[in-house]
Amino acid sequence: MKPAKPEETQTRVRTSQSTQTATLAEIARQAGVSAPTVSKVLNGRADVAPTTRTRVEELLREYGYRRRRAEATRSPLIDLVFHELESAWAMEVIRGVENVAREEGLSVVLSESAGRLTPGRTWADQVAARRPHGVVLVLSGLDESQRALLTSRSIPFVVMDPAGDPGDDVPSIGATNWQGGLAATRHLVELGHRRIGAISGPSRMMCSRARVDGYRAALETAGLPVDADLIKAGDFHHETGYRLGLELLRRPDRPTAVFAGNDLQALGLYEAARELGLRIPEDLSVVGFDDLPVARWVGPPLTTVRQPLMEMAEAAARLVLDLGRQEGASAATRVELATSLVVRSSTGVPGLPAV
Amino acid sequence: MKPAKPEETQTRVRTSQSTQTATLAEIARQAGVSAPTVSKVLNGRADVAPTTRTRVEELLREYGYRRRRAEATRSPLIDLVFHELESAWAMEVIRGVENVAREEGLSVVLSESAGRLTPGRTWADQVAARRPHGVVLVLSGLDESQRALLTSRSIPFVVMDPAGDPGDDVPSIGATNWQGGLAATRHLVELGHRRIGAISGPSRMMCSRARVDGYRAALETAGLPVDADLIKAGDFHHETGYRLGLELLRRPDRPTAVFAGNDLQALGLYEAARELGLRIPEDLSVVGFDDLPVARWVGPPLTTVRQPLMEMAEAAARLVLDLGRQEGASAATRVELATSLVVRSSTGVPGLPAV
Repeated sequence: MKPAKPEETQTRVRTSQSTQTATLAEIARQAGVSAPTVSKVLNGRADVAPTTRTRVEELLREYGYRRRRAEATRSPLIDLVFHELESAWAMEVIRGVENVAREEGLSVVLSESAGRLTPGRTWADQVAARRPHGVVLVLSGLDESQRALLTSRSIPFVVMDPAGDPGDDVPSIGATNWQGGLAATRHLVELGHRRIGAISGPSRMMCSRARVDGYRAALETAGLPVDADLIKAGDFHHETGYRLGLELLRRPDRPTAVFAGNDLQALGLYEAARELGLRIPEDLSVVGFDDLPVARWVGPPLTTVRQPLMEMAEAAARLVLDLGRQEGASAATRVELATSLVVRSSTGVPGLPAV
Repeated sequence: MKPAKPEETQTRVRTSQSTQTATLAEIARQAGVSAPTVSKVLNGRADVAPTTRTRVEELLREYGYRRRRAEATRSPLIDLVFHELESAWAMEVIRGVENVAREEGLSVVLSESAGRLTPGRTWADQVAARRPHGVVLVLSGLDESQRALLTSRSIPFVVMDPAGDPGDDVPSIGATNWQGGLAATRHLVELGHRRIGAISGPSRMMCSRARVDGYRAALETAGLPVDADLIKAGDFHHETGYRLGLELLRRPDRPTAVFAGNDLQALGLYEAARELGLRIPEDLSVVGFDDLPVARWVGPPLTTVRQPLMEMAEAAARLVLDLGRQEGASAATRVELATSLVVRSSTGVPGLPAV
């Protein structure tokens, strides 16, 4: 792993009107430091004074500096960043990225943004220092300075299942969440349900909003009223499915079916139903979302919307590697893989045994 | 990341009688190459002829060469290697290592030995090249040349839940598997069960053998016969729990209780019981092993032996970092964390409702 030489780099100076090219030496002159010092900053070396580092980073960003991509300067790594590392959901994603990494002779570096939706500044510095082939962010995003930092090092990134709106110029891989929410709810309507509740994920996550919007669209196109009291804001965790499930099921006018937002919340809802002595599907129909392995294993096996998580992760990893291979490629790529309804035994005609 | 200088290294020549010190220059002379070439091999650089590389590696191993540990030459990484990345089980382990890594400002590099029980040669080269603070191997091992390669770079390693017998000089973290199998089976005996089946994990895995031995010990100490027909060799997967569960439950003299070896096999057994119309626990008591999050969520919630997976992974990560901090430390450390029986609703008195 040799440090980048000046001739391996190129710079474009971006102003509102024009795009020019500047050298690393020019950045150094502007910053009042030597060219090797700018190199050290680019390589994430620790032996640079913090104030110098900040000044150089600002100039790199201001000038829209991009190190020329050179395979030789990259480590055989791909970074995978999670919002939170918590469920079998994350496992499917890890397996997908690992599959592609193995094919390409790369190793996967795993990080967690630990509940915050953008990973910390230290994280971006570490990534810049280890120079991976690319970064896959899951349900997570990057702030402006983090994006600038990765861009100046020509480290491509792709967001899988964007939490917020990542911006038009950020490549992303998602699933057809709206369509999935629609299919789940339409299935319940077709079985004859008229009072259908929903437990959503966090409202700040786009995937979660899209699912509930699909649920609403299915009710509205069937001419059924949307009752705001039957829509509960969850967080994709089992415990919340249980708690909000109890709230929904204890109502005197309880719903006969619930679209649970994801599989873990559906399992929480199973627990709530069990506690209240309600049978699934005779007394309550349940639809999940994700189709985690566990969905097949629970009793009764869960009807759910399959999201091809492993394939999505594979697609995100391939896309980020492709971006790294194309000099200067920045085509905004957004891909949504299809979801599909998997009918098992947790849904039935209201008041009757399973379909 | 600067390359190691010769003065940062030291060598001990091990013969059967004595321990001597040799320099990198002496290794180079023996190999008929320059000292920088030996450095390149140690640093995993690609620009060394394969035959030279092999010769140098052999000499490094022969002379028991150990690079002196120097924090400065390490990347802020910790390697985590799985036998297979497959279940919620792996997720708990990843979370444990990630917790420690975050505390220490390190990132986790994840690899999978993909079903083989020792990761490939390429893997060891990659690890040597990226110079992590240490390597945690899960249900996996290293062959002689891989151990030599890591040892010569002073990269410490710890095995979590050793699959085979890792050797006395390999530090490892496990759980009290035998004790867990004993507790699970004793619980069933105390409820009044007399015909108790078992589904084991793969017999090449020590943890799996120990659990079944605990099961046998419980039967024998209770004066009950051990019926070999009631012990089925599984592989820790759900599908196998289902398949072997059907075999056990279709017998005319079917067992009234089964120790399922792990939670995933227990869930497969649930499915087999459901298919045959047997109620849990009225017609069949089931005990799992692991206490994955899903054990609480299934219906009925699963009685299981809790294995503190996250704590075990944290302990393994801390141990490997400690080993890296102590110059020349090679104390064989074996730790087994305690398992504990968690009684939920899948076990009961034979023919009666849940306890």
